[in-house]
Amino acid sequence: MDPRWSELSARIGAEKVRPWDPETLGAYARDESGLGAHAPAAVVFPSSTEDVAEVMRFASAHRIPVTPCAARTGKSGGSLPLPGGIALSMERMNRILELSREDLTLVVQPGCVTGQVMAAAEEAGLFYPPDPNSWETCSIGGNVAENAGGPRALKYGVTRDYVLGLEAVLPSGEVVRTGKRTIKGVAGYDLTALLVGSEGTLAVITEITLRLVPLPREIRTALCIFPDEGSAARAVAGILGAGILPRTLELFDDCSIDASSRKGPYRFPDGARSAILAETDGDEGEAVMRQLERLGGIALESGAIDVLVAQTETQRRDLWATRRRVSEALRLLHPLKVSEDIVVPRSRIPEAVERLKALGRTHGLTVATYGHAGDGNLHANVLFDREEERPRVNACVDDVIRVALDLGGTITGEHGVGLAKRDFLPLEQGEGLIGLQRALKGVFDPLGILNPGKIFL
Amino acid sequence: MDPRWSELSARIGAEKVRPWDPETLGAYARDESGLGAHAPAAVVFPSSTEDVAEVMRFASAHRIPVTPCAARTGKSGGSLPLPGGIALSMERMNRILELSREDLTLVVQPGCVTGQVMAAAEEAGLFYPPDPNSWETCSIGGNVAENAGGPRALKYGVTRDYVLGLEAVLPSGEVVRTGKRTIKGVAGYDLTALLVGSEGTLAVITEITLRLVPLPREIRTALCIFPDEGSAARAVAGILGAGILPRTLELFDDCSIDASSRKGPYRFPDGARSAILAETDGDEGEAVMRQLERLGGIALESGAIDVLVAQTETQRRDLWATRRRVSEALRLLHPLKVSEDIVVPRSRIPEAVERLKALGRTHGLTVATYGHAGDGNLHANVLFDREEERPRVNACVDDVIRVALDLGGTITGEHGVGLAKRDFLPLEQGEGLIGLQRALKGVFDPLGILNPGKIFL
Repeated sequence: MDPRWSELSARIGAEKVRPWDPETLGAYARDESGLGAHAPAAVVFPSSTEDVAEVMRFASAHRIPVTPCAARTGKSGGSLPLPGGIALSMERMNRILELSREDLTLVVQPGCVTGQVMAAAEEAGLFYPPDPNSWETCSIGGNVAENAGGPRALKYGVTRDYVLGLEAVLPSGEVVRTGKRTIKGVAGYDLTALLVGSEGTLAVITEITLRLVPLPREIRTALCIFPDEGSAARAVAGILGAGILPRTLELFDDCSIDASSRKGPYRFPDGARSAILAETDGDEGEAVMRQLERLGGIALESGAIDVLVAQTETQRRDLWATRRRVSEALRLLHPLKVSEDIVVPRSRIPEAVERLKALGRTHGLTVATYGHAGDGNLHANVLFDREEERPRVNACVDDVIRVALDLGGTITGEHGVGLAKRDFLPLEQGEGLIGLQRALKGVFDPLGILNPGKIFL
Repeated sequence: MDPRWSELSARIGAEKVRPWDPETLGAYARDESGLGAHAPAAVVFPSSTEDVAEVMRFASAHRIPVTPCAARTGKSGGSLPLPGGIALSMERMNRILELSREDLTLVVQPGCVTGQVMAAAEEAGLFYPPDPNSWETCSIGGNVAENAGGPRALKYGVTRDYVLGLEAVLPSGEVVRTGKRTIKGVAGYDLTALLVGSEGTLAVITEITLRLVPLPREIRTALCIFPDEGSAARAVAGILGAGILPRTLELFDDCSIDASSRKGPYRFPDGARSAILAETDGDEGEAVMRQLERLGGIALESGAIDVLVAQTETQRRDLWATRRRVSEALRLLHPLKVSEDIVVPRSRIPEAVERLKALGRTHGLTVATYGHAGDGNLHANVLFDREEERPRVNACVDDVIRVALDLGGTITGEHGVGLAKRDFLPLEQGEGLIGLQRALKGVFDPLGILNPGKIFL
């Protein structure tokens, strides 16, 4: 065994240090980005903040790169250990530490599965709103690192909006506590906000203090069915323009409907070429229903052919299961895909949907668009069948990104830059701004050992 | 005239550069912190981003300190030009640049008065929620610099939650654009969040893109009157614990009630020794009223002697005018005061109120507590009559800060550290965290010319 791993084993315990073995550790070389396998030299499993600090001191002394990971469900390659080194898996630090009903706070370790975090809040009659699609398997630490979103971001905001404070280990091994346990607090620079979304490149997060909100007592769900994407996109603009803020407004385009109807559990009716899955919530059932009815009325005025209100919890669950499986379902149309995560200002959604569709025609490929239309965050998927098509696919993806920027949007709404969008960042941000970010990275990580190769080229 | 001012006049126009003259410029040496007069060497009035860039290039070349200011309504001395140099007043950059009803965005210059920003949103049927007490006179740029809060922060969050993007000028004169125009977006580090609340020490903000939300159509207001602070504090905990999230829960203690009853316009009834001004909002009048009724019921169970629901807009306005004037009204009891801005976890509010009152007795001073009880942000005011009492007052303020920290809170909820709380920051934050912030400051401002002497000693 590499004597370095013996040294680290002696420092934190042999059961926490596993030199690379593709047979048993293969999963640690991959994530959900589809960006291939990148094997680390060892996978390390800390069980405490002190372990993490020790690993970072060791890594600093030996100049070994460290890439934090947990559930490895990321879509941008943020947890891929590009340069080898240590894959620092936070999965054993998975405890819920403290919930306060009175303070509406929840303190958790980064390896908690997001679904557990949601469930812990709900058991106390409280609500942790961020709901990335992978909530059943992803980790809260990964959500914080990537500033994950989800359908409910429309009304409730993203992960950053719920992080009050952090404990984190700097690359040097120093432990810092940022933020607060209170809703308000403006003492010093907001390092909490800086660490959220920094994709594991500035510090290793070891504890998270979350803000919770009261659990809305009533939820109503409707599926609005349209004959084309244009009318669906107009409905989104109309609903928001009417001052209605539903908790979700999820768009399906024609491809997503075709794919979803094959996958199920919900089968769209004939004639459905686009759809919006809308949900309203609040404390008063009648008011929540009236808001949904107003929303449905606007959908019908915008050209919807039907508005179906979920009558049972099973119907609601089926609709959401269908929405959550769109990404997989698209593989039933074409086995390969590149999934983008652009955002456009809401007023430009109709134009974005149309231009993305046209891009597919230009490149001779299928572009399927679905996602969080209410906040302009569209998952544009370029579908294809054979690896040989990759150059054409890449050209199309490039154009997808340019459409987002051209419409005043951004290259990534919730997946992060990581490795997947590293080359595109200079298209969105000026040299000065990127230079500033590199300099900040240098303050936290002067040796450049923490998650190198991500965000910036 | 100092030849440097002639040079700057030549570069940006003589009408924008005014060498110090205490007769006509005296106001630029002060703010609302009560921390005395600090005269700049010149007051400069840029009218464009290019002007600001030119001033910063000039200041960098001559190593002249620059302190941004606008309405000078800050409470922590953030805009006091401590080391002389240039007071950079943003007051002429006061235009509303663009409102998009569809995107729910508003682009403004930093010198806009916050009340104008609110009004511009409301004219479009939209809502800019942050409502610092000084909203009629303070500037939106100052709100962004300090991350201002206000009563509605309880439900709607603080200024940071509404800033999507910024244009800012670095101390070098370089112009950067941070953030986005869309709700979601995770490209790179969140420099927008870092600049918000950085108290004018990292960059000069020259343009702000704000997120708006739909304007709630219905608001209901109630004043809950209590025989003592303990029952009011319990009511706050009970209301939030019941899953009710009103838009405000403002606390008055006995001193605040006595002072307010002298000042008006509202006169509290006999027996009122504490009160909560509560407001609920939403789109459905009946649901909003029912929420207020549930809230009032909990207040009564907690010991309220009366719950008065505002019946007219005039009554509502009077209640709010009374709340907004508490700070001034306290001067009717004692002419001098030091106003603190602590936050405690909500569960500790009863204990905080009690301990603050006891501190007054210990130090032989009156401590009046009022403010945003719903989020734990209490304005604890140490009242006194003569300057000679200052040492005793300072000792009491010191204890107020320690109570906040002892209860797991923070030294400042919305006023900022500035000069006023600079000495207290090391009580809340460790050396490592403060060192990290100093290093970040060094990245933005290597020459140390931008608002020196603030936040850190």
